Formats: sequence, C-alpha cells, structure tokens
Amino acid sequence: MSDYAVAASRVTHEGVLVTVRIDEVRMPDGEVAEREVVASADAVAVVALDGDDVVLLRQYRHPVGERLLELPAGKLDVDGESREDAARRELCEEVGLEAGELVELTTFHNSAGWTDESTTLYLARAVRPAPAPAGFTATAEEADMEVVRLPLAEAAAMAAEGRLRDAKTVVGLLIARHRLAPS
Amino acid sequence: MSDYAVAASRVTHEGVLVTVRIDEVRMPDGEVAEREVVASADAVAVVALDGDDVVLLRQYRHPVGERLLELPAGKLDVDGESREDAARRELCEEVGLEAGELVELTTFHNSAGWTDESTTLYLARAVRPAPAPAGFTATAEEADMEVVRLPLAEAAAMAAEGRLRDAKTVVGLLIARHRLAPS
Repeated sequence: MSDYAVAASRVTHEGVLVTVRIDEVRMPDGEVAEREVVASADAVAVVALDGDDVVLLRQYRHPVGERLLELPAGKLDVDGESREDAARRELCEEVGLEAGELVELTTFHNSAGWTDESTTLYLARAVRPAPAPAGFTATAEEADMEVVRLPLAEAAAMAAEGRLRDAKTVVGLLIARHRLAPS
Repeated sequence: MSDYAVAASRVTHEGVLVTVRIDEVRMPDGEVAEREVVASADAVAVVALDGDDVVLLRQYRHPVGERLLELPAGKLDVDGESREDAARRELCEEVGLEAGELVELTTFHNSAGWTDESTTLYLARAVRPAPAPAGFTATAEEADMEVVRLPLAEAAAMAAEGRLRDAKTVVGLLIARHRLAPS
C-alpha cells in the first residue's frame, strides 16, 4: 500500500459536511502529483426486516432533486459513537424500530476516486417498535419522510432490475437477499 | 418535486474535481434552510463481458488508501461527450477493448445526501481488442493498474457476499448477473 505516500497535504475548504484538501502523493515511479480529496464522515445504513418485509423510506434528497426509496441511514456525526450504535440510532429516529439482532453485512466506498466516504451496512432482525429518542429533532426532510414496507424479495428484485437509484440501498438489499437466500 | 425550491445559491469552493455550494432551500413547511451540496461530474462504468469472463481492474485509490477491484470507469470530463461515448472511451483506455454491443443497465446516485454525482452503468458484449486512442496519457495510478479477468458468476458471488468494496462495481456486477441469469 505504501507505494503511494503522502508527502504533504493542505486543506483548501472547510465546509459544513465536507472538508476538501489537496494531497501531494509520491507515486510508485517517484513523481509527486497533486490529488484532490473530499473528506466526508462515514455512513451507516440498515436493512431492517420485519417478518418478510423490509422497512424503507421515501425521502427528498436535495443534492439530486429527487425523492428516493432508501434504507434507513445516516452519518457518523456524533462524537465517540460506534458504527453499530449509529445504526441503532438511525433505525430508531427514522423508522421507530429497535433491533433484537444486528449483524454487519459489508462496508463499501461510495465513490473511491474522489471521496474517502465509506458506508457500513447492517442487517436488523427481530425488530420491535421503539420510542423516538429524547432530544431528537427531525430536519424538514426527515419530517417529510414516508415509511414504505415491501417484501424483501420484491425490493431486491427492484434493485436487481436497476429500478432503485440509491447506491447503499441497492447494495444492501442485494447482499441481504443473498445472505438470506443464496442463489 | 417542487415542494422544495432553491431560493438562492452561492458557491463556497471551486476545487479541481468538485464545486461546493450552499443552497437556500424552501421546505414544504415554508421555512428556508441551508443545504451544502458537493457538485461532481457524473460517471460511467462498464461491465465488459469477454465470453463468460468479466474484465476488471485492480487500482490504487488514494482517497481511501486501498487497491480496489473495480469495473472500468471514468468521469464525464470531456466537453460534449455523451455517456455512451465516455463508456466506450474508458473501456478502450483502461482495458484496451471495444464493444460490439453496449446497453445501459441503470443510473444510480453514489451518495445522494450530500453530492449530486450519478453513475451510469453499461453492459458491454462482443468485445474485441482495440488500440489505445491517440493522445491518451495515463495517470500514474492508471499506469499501475492491473487487469483482472474473472468468471462473471464468481465476481458476482464476491459482490453478493460483501467481498468487494467499490459501490459501482457491486451494483454493476449484481445487476448484470440478474440481467443475464435472473434468479
């Protein structure tokens, strides 16, 4: 891995959600080249099964100007919070559920060519209703979210046919279906 | 869709690969809230089949500090180039192939909560060797890429088991496998 070493780094922008920096990277051939990196907090997402159904959300996403059908998910934006705790928190805040069983499925990179973001996916089973956590305030988009329950087989077929447009949701549904019914 | 209208917008950073802006978005309840958006050129990626094999690349990705197994892919960074032309260009530049048949599989959003990036996936068949295009200069990472051929069934199984870490590659392999052998 250390064929590529960072010789120097400078931050060019501190945003609200992201930090942009320019790294000077020493390449295997010895040349040094500049590479722009967008640093963004890692994310978690949950395939939550309630019987045969998966619990999804339809939510407006301003960056793409569309309502997307998505897994419950969120950023690791609470200091000291583990990925698993963040997954449990988002499951509670977004769809009002707690999981009796939570297992990690995978971690993937959303767009490895230009951002360091990774998303860890969990499978939640034995779910039951949970009260919203104390002190939680929904954003306007969260208040406008619609919970959608679909049979996992149907949601996974939509993903496999290219009819869902959110990366973590496609990846999570297809890996969960494979885990539960390998084909 | 127009429940959410952009009342104003200002660019806060012009980077090399990305532009960061703050939009003032009027929410359905009438309130105006600021939303940071990272604008990044759209991408294309190709599931290229040569007989039963899919043609992949192992490539160092500086933002995540790992070598990833990926589909041939790239950004729409040539003025006026269509997505299909970009897919053909990347297939030629990265793995030295041209496609007799190229069909679109899907378009997904890599991380819809904070960036407008989308990636369009293609399935290429009837591939044959093609000379590198005139004027093409590889980056250091591209010169260091390794071409990896695997049976599509094996690569798709790796994706379904959570053993691949690049979003477009997981999505592309699983949708291509479903298209060719629905389960």
